[in-house]
Amino acid sequence: MERVPILKIGDILLVSIQVDMSDETAVALQEDLAERIVATGCHGVIIDITALDIVDSFVGRMLSTIASISRVLDAETVVVGMRPAVAITLVELGLSLNGIRTALNVERGMELIAIDRADDDHHEEWDDGPVAGATASP
Amino acid sequence: MERVPILKIGDILLVSIQVDMSDETAVALQEDLAERIVATGCHGVIIDITALDIVDSFVGRMLSTIASISRVLDAETVVVGMRPAVAITLVELGLSLNGIRTALNVERGMELIAIDRADDDHHEEWDDGPVAGATASP
Repeated sequence: MERVPILKIGDILLVSIQVDMSDETAVALQEDLAERIVATGCHGVIIDITALDIVDSFVGRMLSTIASISRVLDAETVVVGMRPAVAITLVELGLSLNGIRTALNVERGMELIAIDRADDDHHEEWDDGPVAGATASP
Repeated sequence: MERVPILKIGDILLVSIQVDMSDETAVALQEDLAERIVATGCHGVIIDITALDIVDSFVGRMLSTIASISRVLDAETVVVGMRPAVAITLVELGLSLNGIRTALNVERGMELIAIDRADDDHHEEWDDGPVAGATASP
């Protein structure tokens, strides 16, 4: 079975999907990624799909699952590099990629994650403060 | 034909080789990479071979060619993610990967390129100095 490599770059794990995903490969990727997030403490996962000609419901579900797993491990997932034709097909197939954030390329994905982390830090600061404690109550 | 995606991250182009390279794929990658180096002005190329179980003479030659092409386009190439077994096989096969620099992972590859650029800048400063100016005039 082929394993998709996971590259660590700073606070981000980068996955470039280039092979046709089988059930096995998808499960292995999810497990590997979860382990790497825990081991490295990274807060962002970028999945590059430049090489994919089509994103069908199977791949769409895999991306959603990865995003959900990452989220509970306190990491944000961004899918990057989607081709225009893939986007069109996705919409035609009625697939919405629920809960998945996208960006045009790796660099913008990194920016998105950095902005998110900055926002989170900001909220955390507020949460610790007396005022935000009150607004968070309702 | 499959094309290997090239990801731009800052001043670096990142290529993760996961598919078996055919003649066509290798030539396409060399062309794509040369075009991207010129288009982006990037000074570093990182080739990740984590996914490769074996580096034979064909892949070795391809890596050397990419490094040579990049060099004439003023970009440094670093091969990262080589598995221990691959390194052992390379030596057993008598392949030396001439002119190719290696690093353990993407982050160290990036550091290597950053250090090289810093060194180059330093030399360029010297070249611009009054002494070097005399040598540049003819």
